[in-house]
Amino acid sequence: MKLYGFFRSSAAFRVRIALNLKRLDYQQAFIHLRRGEQEQPGYRAINPQGLVPALETDGLTLIQSLPIIEYLDERYPDPPLLPGDPAGRARVRGLAAIVACDIHPINNLRVLRYLHGPLGHDEAALAQWYNHWIDAGFGALEPLLAASPHTGAFCHGDAPGLADIALVPQVVNSERYRLDLAPFPTIRRIYETCMTLDAFAQAHPRAQPDCEA
Amino acid sequence: MKLYGFFRSSAAFRVRIALNLKRLDYQQAFIHLRRGEQEQPGYRAINPQGLVPALETDGLTLIQSLPIIEYLDERYPDPPLLPGDPAGRARVRGLAAIVACDIHPINNLRVLRYLHGPLGHDEAALAQWYNHWIDAGFGALEPLLAASPHTGAFCHGDAPGLADIALVPQVVNSERYRLDLAPFPTIRRIYETCMTLDAFAQAHPRAQPDCEA
Repeated sequence: MKLYGFFRSSAAFRVRIALNLKRLDYQQAFIHLRRGEQEQPGYRAINPQGLVPALETDGLTLIQSLPIIEYLDERYPDPPLLPGDPAGRARVRGLAAIVACDIHPINNLRVLRYLHGPLGHDEAALAQWYNHWIDAGFGALEPLLAASPHTGAFCHGDAPGLADIALVPQVVNSERYRLDLAPFPTIRRIYETCMTLDAFAQAHPRAQPDCEA
Repeated sequence: MKLYGFFRSSAAFRVRIALNLKRLDYQQAFIHLRRGEQEQPGYRAINPQGLVPALETDGLTLIQSLPIIEYLDERYPDPPLLPGDPAGRARVRGLAAIVACDIHPINNLRVLRYLHGPLGHDEAALAQWYNHWIDAGFGALEPLLAASPHTGAFCHGDAPGLADIALVPQVVNSERYRLDLAPFPTIRRIYETCMTLDAFAQAHPRAQPDCEA
């Protein structure tokens, strides 16, 4: 099993957490996004989208972090990353999608580069943009988590799963421009609980071999 | 079953297609996004994220289009919207995620409004932004579809499914600023095939009761 990733990619971070929770061994290939290695023909042949992560396993090349994690959950069901009931799965997938569809892609490197390059915005405008979308997403996640009887030590019950896997890298990203997490106590509590687990801690960007100062 | 949507929302469009393919009866509640009805407390109580769609069913309020569709597929398995094998499901979910994570949210109304309002960009810059992200996503989808033996009349085999449900509304969106689809013949072929089906045609924004000229 070979994961193409980059220490700072929060989509790759998600897959690292899932692989760790499943206790699966994997190799890493490091695609340096700031140096543009994702644009090289070699990597484009692996993932035509030119994004990380990609996972080679079972003779397949899988792309897109949540579909990769759903695949791992189907192939290696123990421990499960999704609840056993359709309603629970819909809730967890919905929470994960708030991050994976409506926060992270808008703040991705290629989008920030477009804002900086063609649109000419400075670092202060980028910081405002970045925190605006996290704030909007967390502003929905917090009441959805705080008000639900399904929320436990983790986003759904007392075992970590797909929603936590999406949430934790986004909280780490929120440190980039020092977003105030005080309005999001449930998110912060769950994040802190997750980070006590090796599966999350060892997947952190700082713990990766390609991490830069 | 009650769908909160808006004729122009391509995320709501996806759920309409899925409901039609499943031959499920549903009511529609129209949340006028341009008038800001999604920001009103009434709708925020239904979906704290203030986005459409939301689906009320089985005593639940589901949010996020792809999780809603996965729920429908689990509750009403016939006809299936995902392949029966994990590899096929990963492929279809990956194709859908290219649209649902990496194209659509970046071009969403709230993002365009931020570009226009706080960042002060004009319509020409918005058009360029909009087509840039569709072009990037379709530029990955096209070879993934064209090169795969799994692609048939539809994105995966010869029956419509989740990837087609994501793709078709995005092709409709590409008409907004007249993106040239010539570089994407497989996407165009699949789109045209889908639009011959009532389930897709009747879900089109123009066919909705809240459609405006």
